[in-house]
Amino acid sequence: MDFATRIENALLAAIEPGESAGCPPGLAAAIRYAVFPGGARVRPRLCLAVASACGDPHPRIADAAAASIELLHCASLMHDDLPCFDDATTRRGKPAVHRTFGERLAVLGGDAMIVLAFESLADACGEAPERLPLLLKIIGRSVGTSGGIVAGQAWECEPRASLTQYQQAKTGSLFAAATMAGAAAVGEADSEAWRALGEKIGEAYQVADDILDVTASASEIGKPVGRDAALGRPSVVALLGLDGAIASLKRLVAEATDSIPAIPAADALRAVIFAQAQGLLPRDLRQAA
Amino acid sequence: MDFATRIENALLAAIEPGESAGCPPGLAAAIRYAVFPGGARVRPRLCLAVASACGDPHPRIADAAAASIELLHCASLMHDDLPCFDDATTRRGKPAVHRTFGERLAVLGGDAMIVLAFESLADACGEAPERLPLLLKIIGRSVGTSGGIVAGQAWECEPRASLTQYQQAKTGSLFAAATMAGAAAVGEADSEAWRALGEKIGEAYQVADDILDVTASASEIGKPVGRDAALGRPSVVALLGLDGAIASLKRLVAEATDSIPAIPAADALRAVIFAQAQGLLPRDLRQAA
Repeated sequence: MDFATRIENALLAAIEPGESAGCPPGLAAAIRYAVFPGGARVRPRLCLAVASACGDPHPRIADAAAASIELLHCASLMHDDLPCFDDATTRRGKPAVHRTFGERLAVLGGDAMIVLAFESLADACGEAPERLPLLLKIIGRSVGTSGGIVAGQAWECEPRASLTQYQQAKTGSLFAAATMAGAAAVGEADSEAWRALGEKIGEAYQVADDILDVTASASEIGKPVGRDAALGRPSVVALLGLDGAIASLKRLVAEATDSIPAIPAADALRAVIFAQAQGLLPRDLRQAA
Repeated sequence: MDFATRIENALLAAIEPGESAGCPPGLAAAIRYAVFPGGARVRPRLCLAVASACGDPHPRIADAAAASIELLHCASLMHDDLPCFDDATTRRGKPAVHRTFGERLAVLGGDAMIVLAFESLADACGEAPERLPLLLKIIGRSVGTSGGIVAGQAWECEPRASLTQYQQAKTGSLFAAATMAGAAAVGEADSEAWRALGEKIGEAYQVADDILDVTASASEIGKPVGRDAALGRPSVVALLGLDGAIASLKRLVAEATDSIPAIPAADALRAVIFAQAQGLLPRDLRQAA
């Protein structure tokens, strides 16, 4: 089964408790709306790419890890879009969750998706419970208070934060979790060896996102453009200019693929990573990376 | 070590990642503020009471389960108090988190505490990973979309919900998790046998809360009174009157203690539960229960 199908199936399985009779219909609808149809599913694809490259005897665990990471990503978007943060009107080419379902279900939907992310991980690890503590710690840390997504968002509430610290927490952390969890899902004890790959891809993704914010159209990326400048947010393009940002992106992708541990399938994984990275840029800039 | 000390220590350990350099100071402060000083810690005390009665060879796991449940409770209060829900001004006798730290850190603080709850569980289960899947599922379900706290809160967004369904999800679920997790933490395979105890105590607690809302002063319970009527919320007192509510409370406590499985320490546990239940009522009503 290809990665895309595995990811959508795993996400469907993960949100299944929301389809039960015990779940209020509005909440269930808000969660479905936030998760499907998805964006590029960059993080879960990265997770499955690493798990497959390492050999994958328990695909159910890797699938659940990938879904868990994507659910946490969707939850963070849902809360980021709230009126008290970005007050975004659109997301992935349709009205933001709080515009369609109201602010209350946007808060609760995000909460629910954080819980579902961990529940689905526990469900999948029934057959190999010894994998669960490490997987949960990797994924939990990447979204939590200590350099995780929530910390990244909370740096926006501080009078000063470094660009690196902010981006590492806001984006890099979940990418690092994707590669590390991919390895941990297949029982690789040294998940730390996979951190650099995720962190570099995360940095590259952030740079690509900043580039898209100034070069793409809203219809191309499915959300408003020019938001960084409008909100006075730190941006690599503002700091280095467009050419500098593109050079930085090339360097980061090279550093990422160089960091891949010496596994038999390293070359194949390198090719997958490089192809995924190309997809991050608008079409007319792809040759440049 | 007594329950109260174990609970406060476990909570301190659970929020420790928020004290690291990677955590924005505002976020760390909001979390500390929401967790300390606590309320009655009813749920974690119930969890430790069950774990101890079952015999407790891994107190670290029971402590983490108790802390996890209390953190999730505090997170739900933080989000319930937001302007888009209750817009509460005070909680536990001091300004609500969103009034002191702003709405953004109240959203993020709740998110962070959900993550910390699961992370701390994973940390504690390093020595007995086979306990983690069941523990995580018990606790995750009790706060999630399928009859958990989030579902309970989301029923408030629906045009109609039954009082039972609403209260079971909003309150009963986390009490059931407290007793079931207490048993699961010590390796009891049949955690379901402990559900009725938690559910009945949770129902009793909800009834006691409704009674307090009409009989107590704001200073006595540390939050505004008369909110149920003001917000048109379902309430047992509104449904059965004060005497009916008190009779219902007595019945529920009796059913709770009757449901305790046949363990050697059942009588001792019954006495602990009864004492805890007495503490739920205002002083002048205690003889009545």
